[in-house]
Amino acid sequence: MEGTALVDSKSKRLIAYHEVGHALVGTLMKDHDPVQKVTLIPRGQALGLTWFTPNEEQGLISRSQLKARITSILGGRAAEEVVFGKPEVTTGAGDDLQKVTNLARQMVTKFGMSTLGPLSLENQSGEVFLGRDWMNKSEYSEEIAAKIDSQVREIINNSYQTAKSILEQNRVALERLVDLLSDQETIEGELFRKIVAEHAQVADEKIAVSSH
Amino acid sequence: MEGTALVDSKSKRLIAYHEVGHALVGTLMKDHDPVQKVTLIPRGQALGLTWFTPNEEQGLISRSQLKARITSILGGRAAEEVVFGKPEVTTGAGDDLQKVTNLARQMVTKFGMSTLGPLSLENQSGEVFLGRDWMNKSEYSEEIAAKIDSQVREIINNSYQTAKSILEQNRVALERLVDLLSDQETIEGELFRKIVAEHAQVADEKIAVSSH
Amino acid sequence: MEGTALVDSKSKRLIAYHEVGHALVGTLMKDHDPVQKVTLIPRGQALGLTWFTPNEEQGLISRSQLKARITSILGGRAAEEVVFGKPEVTTGAGDDLQKVTNLARQMVTKFGMSTLGPLSLENQSGEVFLGRDWMNKSEYSEEIAAKIDSQVREIINNSYQTAKSILEQNRVALERLVDLLSDQETIEGELFRKIVAEHAQVADEKIAVSSH
Amino acid sequence: MEGTALVDSKSKRLIAYHEVGHALVGTLMKDHDPVQKVTLIPRGQALGLTWFTPNEEQGLISRSQLKARITSILGGRAAEEVVFGKPEVTTGAGDDLQKVTNLARQMVTKFGMSTLGPLSLENQSGEVFLGRDWMNKSEYSEEIAAKIDSQVREIINNSYQTAKSILEQNRVALERLVDLLSDQETIEGELFRKIVAEHAQVADEKIAVSSH
Amino acid sequence: MEGTALVDSKSKRLIAYHEVGHALVGTLMKDHDPVQKVTLIPRGQALGLTWFTPNEEQGLISRSQLKARITSILGGRAAEEVVFGKPEVTTGAGDDLQKVTNLARQMVTKFGMSTLGPLSLENQSGEVFLGRDWMNKSEYSEEIAAKIDSQVREIINNSYQTAKSILEQNRVALERLVDLLSDQETIEGELFRKIVAEHAQVADEKIAVSSH
Amino acid sequence: MEGTALVDSKSKRLIAYHEVGHALVGTLMKDHDPVQKVTLIPRGQALGLTWFTPNEEQGLISRSQLKARITSILGGRAAEEVVFGKPEVTTGAGDDLQKVTNLARQMVTKFGMSTLGPLSLENQSGEVFLGRDWMNKSEYSEEIAAKIDSQVREIINNSYQTAKSILEQNRVALERLVDLLSDQETIEGELFRKIVAEHAQVADEKIAVSSH
Repeated sequence: MEGTALVDSKSKRLIAYHEVGHALVGTLMKDHDPVQKVTLIPRGQALGLTWFTPNEEQGLISRSQLKARITSILGGRAAEEVVFGKPEVTTGAGDDLQKVTNLARQMVTKFGMSTLGPLSLENQSGEVFLGRDWMNKSEYSEEIAAKIDSQVREIINNSYQTAKSILEQNRVALERLVDLLSDQETIEGELFRKIVAEHAQVADEKIAVSSH
Repeated sequence: MEGTALVDSKSKRLIAYHEVGHALVGTLMKDHDPVQKVTLIPRGQALGLTWFTPNEEQGLISRSQLKARITSILGGRAAEEVVFGKPEVTTGAGDDLQKVTNLARQMVTKFGMSTLGPLSLENQSGEVFLGRDWMNKSEYSEEIAAKIDSQVREIINNSYQTAKSILEQNRVALERLVDLLSDQETIEGELFRKIVAEHAQVADEKIAVSSH
Repeated sequence: MEGTALVDSKSKRLIAYHEVGHALVGTLMKDHDPVQKVTLIPRGQALGLTWFTPNEEQGLISRSQLKARITSILGGRAAEEVVFGKPEVTTGAGDDLQKVTNLARQMVTKFGMSTLGPLSLENQSGEVFLGRDWMNKSEYSEEIAAKIDSQVREIINNSYQTAKSILEQNRVALERLVDLLSDQETIEGELFRKIVAEHAQVADEKIAVSSH
Repeated sequence: MEGTALVDSKSKRLIAYHEVGHALVGTLMKDHDPVQKVTLIPRGQALGLTWFTPNEEQGLISRSQLKARITSILGGRAAEEVVFGKPEVTTGAGDDLQKVTNLARQMVTKFGMSTLGPLSLENQSGEVFLGRDWMNKSEYSEEIAAKIDSQVREIINNSYQTAKSILEQNRVALERLVDLLSDQETIEGELFRKIVAEHAQVADEKIAVSSH
Repeated sequence: MEGTALVDSKSKRLIAYHEVGHALVGTLMKDHDPVQKVTLIPRGQALGLTWFTPNEEQGLISRSQLKARITSILGGRAAEEVVFGKPEVTTGAGDDLQKVTNLARQMVTKFGMSTLGPLSLENQSGEVFLGRDWMNKSEYSEEIAAKIDSQVREIINNSYQTAKSILEQNRVALERLVDLLSDQETIEGELFRKIVAEHAQVADEKIAVSSH
Repeated sequence: MEGTALVDSKSKRLIAYHEVGHALVGTLMKDHDPVQKVTLIPRGQALGLTWFTPNEEQGLISRSQLKARITSILGGRAAEEVVFGKPEVTTGAGDDLQKVTNLARQMVTKFGMSTLGPLSLENQSGEVFLGRDWMNKSEYSEEIAAKIDSQVREIINNSYQTAKSILEQNRVALERLVDLLSDQETIEGELFRKIVAEHAQVADEKIAVSSH
C-alpha cells in the first residue's frame, strides 16, 4: 500500500487491515507462495508491505497460480471494503489494481488462459519502434479488444469476490492478526501461519480457484 | 473562479455567490476539509478564492472524501444556477469543471471506485514516451471507454445535484454569507463556520455521500 | 465576410446584406454587445466588416451571451438565405461558420453549458506535446464524441433558426439599412440603432435565447 | 483527362467525347463560366483539355455555382458512360473524381452547404503541425464522419445523374462537336457555343441545379 | 509465382498449372493483352513466369480491361484449386493476391468503378508528409471504409469464380498446355494460342466480364 | 517451451509432456515434417525442444501443411491440458501461441486461405516508414478486421481441438514417450517414430486436416 508517510491512527489501522488482507488471502489460497513477513514500517512510498517467499523456481507459472496471485493482491482492497464499507475504500490500492490488471491481461492476451482460446493478442517482442508498434497494435479489431476487456474484468471481479468471501469467513483470524500487527508493527511468516492455523476456517484444505 | 479582473458590480456579486457556493457545500459535507478563508480579492487569474485546511495527512484519501471534494468544487457553478438561473451560468467555472472531471476519472480508472470494479484503466506511470503511451492507450476497447465516460458523468451529475440541493436548502445561510463577503471581501474560516452553524439546516449531522 | 476584393455590384449587394445581417441580429438580441460600426470598405481579406463595442468587461461570459454571439455571427449567412434563397448562399461565410463551431463546442466541452452536464471534455492546458495530447485526446469515447457533436449541431441549428426568423420579421429594417450601407459604405452604431428603433419589431423588449 | 500520350484512334475518340462532355455540360448549366477552348492537343500529362473563362471575379462563389462546377467536371466520365457503356469507362477520369470530391467535401465541411447545417467540420487553418492537427482531426465523431460522407456522395451522385441526362438529351450536339473536335483538334469557345445553340435542347433557358 | 528454387517434381507440376492458369485465363478473356511467353525457368524469386504483350498504348485503361487483368492474375491460384483441391493451394500466390487487391481497390477508390459512384476515396497525391497524410486518411468514415472493402472483395471473388469456371470448362487445353510446358519448360505466345484454339471452348467469342 | 532453467521434478514432467505433445501431434498429422529429435536438455531460454526435419524444399507450402504446423505447435499446450487439466496449463506456451497466431493470421491476410477469399489484407512490403505504414494500416475497415480475427480464432481453435483429440486417442503412446524422455532426456526421430508405430492408433493412415 502506497501513500505519504506520517499517518494518523485511523489510517494506520486501515493500512494494517490492507496488509493482513494480502497476507491472509495469500496464505489461504492453494497454489500461492507462503508469507515471509508483513510489516507496517514504511519503506519508500509504501505505508506497509507484505512479502511472499517465491516457490522453488518460477520458470513455469500455472493458470491457477496466476489467479491465486491476483486474488491475494486484491486482498488488500477487499479487507478495506469488508471492514470499513465501500465509501471508506482508499486510494492506497491504486498500485495493486495496476498489478492485477496487468496479470489478468497477460493471462488473456499472452498465455491463452481465457475463453478466447490459445492465441496471442499482444506484441510480445517489447519493441517500441514507432512504425512496428503501430502495425502490431492494429493487429486485432475493436470486437476482439472488447472481448479481451470483458475477460480481464471477469477474472478480476471473480478474484475480488473470492478475496472478500475468504476474509468474511475468516474475520476472527483477520482481527487477531491486525491487532498483533498494530501492536508489533511486523509479523514473521511462521508466526503468521501459526495464528492462521489456529483461527482460520480453511487452513488445511486450501481454496482452489475454479477454472471456467 | 477565473477571468479578467476589473469586474462590475453584477459580476462581483456573481463571484461572491460562486465562492460561497464552494465553501458552504464543503462545510456541510461529511468528510470534507474545513474552510480556511473565502475572499473576493483577485489573485493572478482568480477573481475570487476559497481555501480549505487539509486534514492531518493526505496519504490515503477515501472514496467518500473524493466525492465530497467533487461536490464542493461543483458548489460554485451550482450557486450560479440556483441563484441566477441556467442562462446566466458563466465561463468562470471552466477550471472547476476540469478539476472535477479529473478527480471523477481517477476514481473510475485509477482507484477502482466505480461499478467497473477494482481494476486499473489508465497508464499510471506518467511516462510520455511515444511508443509506450501508444501501446498503453490501446489497452482498452471503445466499449470500456464508453463505460468509463458513463461512470464519470454519473459521478459528476450526482454530485452536482447534491451541491444544488444543499444550496437550495440553505439559501438563508448562502445569502447571509454573500452579503458579508461582498461587504468585507474576506471571511475567515471560524467566522464562516459560526454563521453556517446559526443558519444552516444540517450543521450538526453532515451530509454523507451515498455509495452505489 | 472574406473573399477576393474587386467585387461586382451583385456581390456588393450580397455583402451588404451579409454585414447588416450580423449587425441587425446582434442589435436585436438581448445580452449582445452594441454595434459600433458596419462597413463595406474592404480590409485585408474581409470584403465587409461589423464591429461591436465590448460590454464593460469580458471576464465572465454567460451562457446567454455566448448564444447571442453565435446567433449574431450566423446573421450574415442567414441574411443571404432569407434574401436570395438557399442556392445563392456563398462561400463568404466559411470563416463565420468556423467561429460559431468553436464557440458552440466550447460551450459543450469546456464550460459545461449543455445537457451533457457540468464536466470538461477537452484538454484546456493548450499543451501540444505529442504524447500528452494523445493521452488527452483519448480521454473520451466515441459515444461521448457523438453526443458532443449532436449538442454542438443543436446549438448552431437553433441559433440559425433564431437569426433567420429575426431577419424575416424585420425585413423592412434590413432593406432600409442595406440601402443606406450600399449608398454610404459605412454606418456608425448610433445611426444604426436609430434606424433599427424606427423600423424593427422588437426594438424595445429584446429577444432572449431560450435555455433548454 | 490525363494519361500517357501517343494514343490510338479508339482512345482519341474516347478523349474527344470526354472533353466535349465537360464543355457541353458546363455550357448548358446555369451559373457556369463560359467555355474558352476545347482541345485534343496533349499538354503535360493531359491527353485533352477544356478551359473555361472565369466570371468577373471569384471572391464569392455560390452553392449553385459549386454544383454547376461539379456537374461539368463529371461531364467527362458521364460522356464515356453514355456513349460507350459502363464497362468501357476509363482510368482517365481519376483526376476529375479527386476534384469533385474535394469540392463536394468543402461544400459540406467548410461552407455549411448541406443538410448538416451551417457549421464548420474541418480545420481551415491549413496548419500541419502535428499536435494541433491531431486535436483538430478528433473534433468530430465517427457518426458525423459518416454523415459527411453520405452528403458528399449524395452531391456527387446527383450531379453525375444531371450530367448524364444533359448529355443524353443533347446527343446530337455531342456527336456534332466530337466530329468537329476530332477533325480540327481544337474548338474555340464562340464556335462551341454557336454549335450548341443550333443543336442543344436547353440552349436558352439553362439548367438550374435543384437545392434540397 | 514466387518461392525458393530447387523444387521437386510435385512442386514443379503445381507451378506449371499455376503459370498456365494465368496464361489460359488471360488468353480466353476479352480485353486482355495476348500471351507473349510462359516459362518454368526460375528468375529471381519467381519459380515460373508468364509474360503478356501490352496492347498498343496503356494511357487509358477501361474498367473491362482491369477486370480481365484481375481475373487472369487469379488464374494461377484458380488452377491450383481446380486441379489439386482447396487444401493443396499454396503460399506461392501471395504476390498475386497483393496485385489483385491493389487493382480492385484502385477501381473502387481512385477510378470510381464501383457502386459507390464516381468519387475519389484515396489520397492520390502520393504525399507522405505526416500531418497531411493524417488529415487525408481521416477523410472518410468507418462506414465508407466498410463499403470499400465490401466492393473490393466482391470484385475479387467474382473474378476468382470466373477464372475457376474458365479453367474447369477448358480442362483439356489446360492439361495439354501443362504437359507441353513441363516437357519444354517454355511456350511462346503463338504456339500457346494455337493450342488454345485447337482445344478451348471459347476460343473465338471471348469471355466478357459482366458489369454490375 | 521457454522459461527459467533449474526446474523441479514436477515442472520437468510437465515439460516432457509439452515436448512430446509437439512431436506426437506432428508425427500423426498428414503433411507434417518428420520429427528429428526431442530433448529436455535446456538451451538458451528453452526448457525443452523438438526439432522437425524440413521436407525436401520449402518453396511452396500448402494450406494443409500450414494447418498441420499450427496443430503440432499447439500440441504442447494441448498435452498440458489433457494430462494435468485446465487450471494447470502454464505460461510456458506463450511463445508457441505467438507463432500459431502469426501463421494463422498469414493464412488469412497474406495467402487467401480463409473464407474471406483470395485477397491480400496486409502490407507485405515490410516497410516501416511512418507515413506509408499509416496509410497501409488504414487499408481495411473495422468490419474486415473483425472478420480476420474471427477467421484466425477459428483456425486456431479448430487446430487446438484436433491436437487435444489426437493426444487423448493416443494416451498410451504419449505416456510411453514421456517416460522414455524423462529417463533419457533425448529421443531421436527414428526411435520416436518406432514407438509411435507400436502404440499409436493412426500410425498408418495419418490425420488429414479438413478444409472448410
